[in-house]
Amino acid sequence: MTDTSTPTAPRPAAPPVGEVTIRRAGPADAATVAMLLHELARHEDSLDAVRADTADWRRLLAHPAVTVLLAFVGDHPVGYVSGVRQLNLWVGRDLFALDDLYVRPEARDRGVGGRLMVSVAELVAPEGLLVTWGVREDNEAGQRFYRRLGATLRTKMVAAWQPAAYADHLESLRRP
Amino acid sequence: MTDTSTPTAPRPAAPPVGEVTIRRAGPADAATVAMLLHELARHEDSLDAVRADTADWRRLLAHPAVTVLLAFVGDHPVGYVSGVRQLNLWVGRDLFALDDLYVRPEARDRGVGGRLMVSVAELVAPEGLLVTWGVREDNEAGQRFYRRLGATLRTKMVAAWQPAAYADHLESLRRP
Repeated sequence: MTDTSTPTAPRPAAPPVGEVTIRRAGPADAATVAMLLHELARHEDSLDAVRADTADWRRLLAHPAVTVLLAFVGDHPVGYVSGVRQLNLWVGRDLFALDDLYVRPEARDRGVGGRLMVSVAELVAPEGLLVTWGVREDNEAGQRFYRRLGATLRTKMVAAWQPAAYADHLESLRRP
Repeated sequence: MTDTSTPTAPRPAAPPVGEVTIRRAGPADAATVAMLLHELARHEDSLDAVRADTADWRRLLAHPAVTVLLAFVGDHPVGYVSGVRQLNLWVGRDLFALDDLYVRPEARDRGVGGRLMVSVAELVAPEGLLVTWGVREDNEAGQRFYRRLGATLRTKMVAAWQPAAYADHLESLRRP
């Protein structure tokens, strides 16, 4: 759900032309962000994990803990990076939990992903926040990309306890 | 850093006697929580990852997003579970990111960990929050314990970008 994608698709025939610009998304960009997230989720075959729609994004993009940086070529959105400031209980302070990095197929191999990560670094550098994120185990190109930036990667297990699963567990304890 | 520990040590000679009670920690419990976290980190050989001291915990335990549930036998603290409510950008709402589950050696094999997890479920059930957490890959007893509760586990890669690493990266881009 928090996996992060990097360029893997073939170059399209007609890439957008012009300079790449990056700016922070606000509530007015909700539809663009929702559209790009759906595109990423479809690309990762996990569209059913996406619940946030444009109305949710209007609220999320107004939340002070949420950051989405959008990349454009001209007026054309070509990618984004998203993350949430989160309290970390071991460190006793916030870290920046990066959620998604996505570059649209027609804009790949132009350094857009690297530019977005640089913008993340510039955003968190003044406070020296640790940045963390998940990467799919089969995303080897992404792992190389992140290691080149100086990130360290390790495998771990993650557990998810769904509402239906813990409801069942609570129910089983009530049975005589 | 967010790994979660479960009972693995041998039973001690003199376990505390009495009923297990669980209650939510407040700022007045900061020293107890800091002490238990240090004990857990020492147990996991990751004491150097802990930065939060008692003063930090006084602040963290007053934060509405932070939950620590303490288990006691009589007045003796025997374990805790901690977590933070976090915005999830795919779902567009909060989830409960469980941070630590720890039971002290002298209180193991008495179901304290299971009781703490039940308390977490009871806490999040009214809102149906998804609960997620990390588990060390070598913690097979913990993995079995969580699967028995109905949690699903998978391996993934996690990346960390330390302030010094992204500062180096930014610096390298400034060089001619």
